[in-house]
Amino acid sequence: MKLTEIKSPADIKTLGINELSEICGEIRKSLLMKLSRHGGHVGPNLGMVEMSVALHYVFDYPQDKIVYDVSHQSYVHKMLTGRMKAFTDPAEYDTVTGFTNPAESPADIFTIGHTSTGVSLAGGLVKARNLKGGTERIVAVVGDGSLSGGEAFEGLNVAATLSGNFVIVVNDNDMSIAENHGGLYENLKLLRDTDGNAPLNYFKAFGLDYRYVAYGNDLKSLIDAFEEVKNLDHPVVVHVCTQKGKGFAPAEANKEVFHFSGPFDIHSGQMLYVDETPDYGDITAEHLLKMMKEDPSVLAITAGTPGVIGFTPERRHEAGKQFEDVGIAEQEAVALASGVARGGGKPFFGVVSSFVQRAYDQLSQDMAINGAPAVIGIFYGSVLGMNDVTHLGWFDIALISNIPNIVFLAPTCRQEYLAMLDWGMRQNEHPVVIKLPGGAVTDCDRTFETDYDALNRYETVRKGSKVALIGAGTFFKTAMDVADLLKDAGIEATVINPRYLSGLDCDTLESLKKDHNLVVTIEDGILDGGWGEKIARYYGTDTEMMVKCYGLEKKFLDRYDRKRILLDNHLSAAQISQDIKELLK
Amino acid sequence: MKLTEIKSPADIKTLGINELSEICGEIRKSLLMKLSRHGGHVGPNLGMVEMSVALHYVFDYPQDKIVYDVSHQSYVHKMLTGRMKAFTDPAEYDTVTGFTNPAESPADIFTIGHTSTGVSLAGGLVKARNLKGGTERIVAVVGDGSLSGGEAFEGLNVAATLSGNFVIVVNDNDMSIAENHGGLYENLKLLRDTDGNAPLNYFKAFGLDYRYVAYGNDLKSLIDAFEEVKNLDHPVVVHVCTQKGKGFAPAEANKEVFHFSGPFDIHSGQMLYVDETPDYGDITAEHLLKMMKEDPSVLAITAGTPGVIGFTPERRHEAGKQFEDVGIAEQEAVALASGVARGGGKPFFGVVSSFVQRAYDQLSQDMAINGAPAVIGIFYGSVLGMNDVTHLGWFDIALISNIPNIVFLAPTCRQEYLAMLDWGMRQNEHPVVIKLPGGAVTDCDRTFETDYDALNRYETVRKGSKVALIGAGTFFKTAMDVADLLKDAGIEATVINPRYLSGLDCDTLESLKKDHNLVVTIEDGILDGGWGEKIARYYGTDTEMMVKCYGLEKKFLDRYDRKRILLDNHLSAAQISQDIKELLK
Repeated sequence: MKLTEIKSPADIKTLGINELSEICGEIRKSLLMKLSRHGGHVGPNLGMVEMSVALHYVFDYPQDKIVYDVSHQSYVHKMLTGRMKAFTDPAEYDTVTGFTNPAESPADIFTIGHTSTGVSLAGGLVKARNLKGGTERIVAVVGDGSLSGGEAFEGLNVAATLSGNFVIVVNDNDMSIAENHGGLYENLKLLRDTDGNAPLNYFKAFGLDYRYVAYGNDLKSLIDAFEEVKNLDHPVVVHVCTQKGKGFAPAEANKEVFHFSGPFDIHSGQMLYVDETPDYGDITAEHLLKMMKEDPSVLAITAGTPGVIGFTPERRHEAGKQFEDVGIAEQEAVALASGVARGGGKPFFGVVSSFVQRAYDQLSQDMAINGAPAVIGIFYGSVLGMNDVTHLGWFDIALISNIPNIVFLAPTCRQEYLAMLDWGMRQNEHPVVIKLPGGAVTDCDRTFETDYDALNRYETVRKGSKVALIGAGTFFKTAMDVADLLKDAGIEATVINPRYLSGLDCDTLESLKKDHNLVVTIEDGILDGGWGEKIARYYGTDTEMMVKCYGLEKKFLDRYDRKRILLDNHLSAAQISQDIKELLK
Repeated sequence: MKLTEIKSPADIKTLGINELSEICGEIRKSLLMKLSRHGGHVGPNLGMVEMSVALHYVFDYPQDKIVYDVSHQSYVHKMLTGRMKAFTDPAEYDTVTGFTNPAESPADIFTIGHTSTGVSLAGGLVKARNLKGGTERIVAVVGDGSLSGGEAFEGLNVAATLSGNFVIVVNDNDMSIAENHGGLYENLKLLRDTDGNAPLNYFKAFGLDYRYVAYGNDLKSLIDAFEEVKNLDHPVVVHVCTQKGKGFAPAEANKEVFHFSGPFDIHSGQMLYVDETPDYGDITAEHLLKMMKEDPSVLAITAGTPGVIGFTPERRHEAGKQFEDVGIAEQEAVALASGVARGGGKPFFGVVSSFVQRAYDQLSQDMAINGAPAVIGIFYGSVLGMNDVTHLGWFDIALISNIPNIVFLAPTCRQEYLAMLDWGMRQNEHPVVIKLPGGAVTDCDRTFETDYDALNRYETVRKGSKVALIGAGTFFKTAMDVADLLKDAGIEATVINPRYLSGLDCDTLESLKKDHNLVVTIEDGILDGGWGEKIARYYGTDTEMMVKCYGLEKKFLDRYDRKRILLDNHLSAAQISQDIKELLK
């Protein structure tokens, strides 16, 4: 049978084990071909080939529902459910997203891109079925890495109380994005070492039924296990050991590198495009490592994504106890950082913008109310950052600038970032959050203040009149470009670097009233709840001063084009300068 | 020894067991006296008398540090650490807050008011100590109810990897605020039933060392257990069984009622002030129960606080499977609701404003991105709500109005609330959040629309000119009062009920330009990131229209006076009308 003949799971249900096995081989080949050319989540999907086939072989699509947590491992599921060509035909590679997506197929029940939610969401399907008297089977597939997030615990805790069929497949490849961290993983190891027979069993502690599959890349083992639980009338955990990167030696050997990668040579596994330019992660890690040598209480913290802040395995080794990976557990990361800070240590937690929102309560309660002088660095918090709908970097200003007590800084370049980082780590008064600029690292040929103690002081970089351009972080450069364009039109604009997103510089804003009648704000995030609106409110009753805010529309977009979205939101220097000329007429 | 002679834990360290026992009796008597007159967390603190004494007897204050999760059980700790008079002298009852508070005493390391954070925060102290080479002991005290929150799992998972002394006391009174829910509690029961000897042990699954204390209200058992672990060089869980409400028969018998209560008769336990007026919880529960009878797929969800949404034990019984308590696990509640909605059920999750922020990521990812038509009701989201710094109800507008796809509604009275609730539960398109009005239930003598499908349509309730007052939710009444005051000054104001907090009614706003030059917004929340600022931005470049926003300053306040804060923020009708008269001059 050819792969392209598989239009739906029904097409594989009549096959024998040998044919299924061949299909798996073909699928792996196609996957590898696509991934080597296109990039993507390599390791997780190679490891899931047999399990995805076995699940669809045993369970009945479309009646039964499979929920993938975090869903970056759903490529083979997509291949089997009507989207094969997106993996076999290079012209169609981009017709599917990298996560489950109900807009693509009814086989995808949810859009999921953040970890640890799958058991909870699937539990909701179970509950709905029970209330409605349905008979469909519900399956959740959750990785061992995802188990480190508290919501996965909450999901299991509640799942144990639900009635009726509910199959929770734990896909244990003994790996998160990097290696796993946390006591739980000792238990998973114990279970693997004892073929699932150890009496000390995390899952059974919830009262959950439990099965163990040692060879999770062996079709027959999987099919047998799933057949056995298919018609159970109660929740069950099926603990399946798979191999991350299975079938591609370089991915089996370098699991962290191949968790997600760009295009690579299909024979050697060499990356095709190696960008040696340091990014803000490298800059951060190098800077922190220097600090660590001078102060043993400096601690770098990650929530399962050490690569984001530049902590490669070598740098992690160098940092030793001064580096802490808490697992994919942002709540823990912020609370731990708050505790370390209150205990006199110097914590830095580096986190992707889209993931920091998983710890809003901890930012507010543990860090801000307690005035814990921890430092949080937000990476990819930008329209120039990640563009999957589940990973947008647009919401952090609205989220964090409105929490009292937090000093929220927006550096405009590498040098200003390091100055702010130094200050944040040195001071003992304030919870500090730094929103790194988006896009490639930019350098400023100047020095910056080393002291940000006097809060909410904007820096006037160019002094003009009529119009003041306040460009925050990433978009300070845009403000400068706008000023250049306006200069050509005979308008000398004032340009301000606000530096602080958490408060207004009322002195500066007041002084603008003298000789300006338009203030323009440009920020790297949604307009609603953002920082520009605070300035609009400030001048709200001033009939002499106009305020025009630039930023993004409040909207979820998936895999957007970065240039397009800037234009759509009138964020190019040309558009803004044109608008200003109109307004000043 | 008299209680008032105890100025610090040092004063009890030389006593024998009999004297300590007498002290416990005295403490319990004083506690009961204060609680019966003043109200507070009755059950949790009565249960903690012996444990608090034993902890301070064994551990060395101020060097060693004790962190209480959720800290509403820290009254006896406060008595022993320099704040005895706040519990023995009625004139001083209000000199301490109901939670640990570093501003009161260095014995309180953190301000904690949300559950499940204690192990994480204490873990931070452990990590800081280890980095700095300190020798202090760190103790975390966490209740069984708090264990249902995912962050408690994250804390235990990381704690297991920390080195050095770390004593995690699990205070197991077999009770959350109401009864516990979740598979984990079967394991706690198993451990209690086997004197801690069952091989299946949730805590040991993390690799944590474990001790069991069957009689957690027996001083000697506690002291022996704490002495045994005091100098361990690794983390240990001490699982202690206490009795909620210990020593006061009515509290022992009615654990849910006495979790937190107002003043009561010290002999009978009868509440002194019984308010029979229905609150929004009662109204919600009655309404949902009616819906449940008509539609078996209607589900009411709580995260450990059934009383908030009026689900008394009787009503829970009546709802049966249509009521789900997921434990103190707001992430799970939102994800479960999203799953139920996607599965065709009709979920309503009712939650306290300050706790909904624990599920921001789930609101955004699971509910909003997925367009799951679940309904969330936010209670006490008001300046007229809870006034502990950890329980402020001011942040929900800034939090939720800026998430795309969510329809965020603000009813002004009971009738409008029920109309919105009906619509939310009936429709299948939108994630809906309803922010209930603050304060006592108000009634409107009119009918309301039953269809809110046409999003973001404001209702113009009074048509005037010059000034338009847009009063949201709680403060619609204030807007009406302002209009009355202005009428006396000859100004006929327009009054608008915006109804939607998640989007602007541009038609209405545009039409105001014709004959108004001032728009006033009044909202029940902080101004920063709120809804008024969106309107200020809307009119930003309109030189003919002034916008004045009323709301709260972005600030944490503890136990504020509700009248005072309204005046401080210029939120009285008299102040606003005065301001308007000035602005219109």
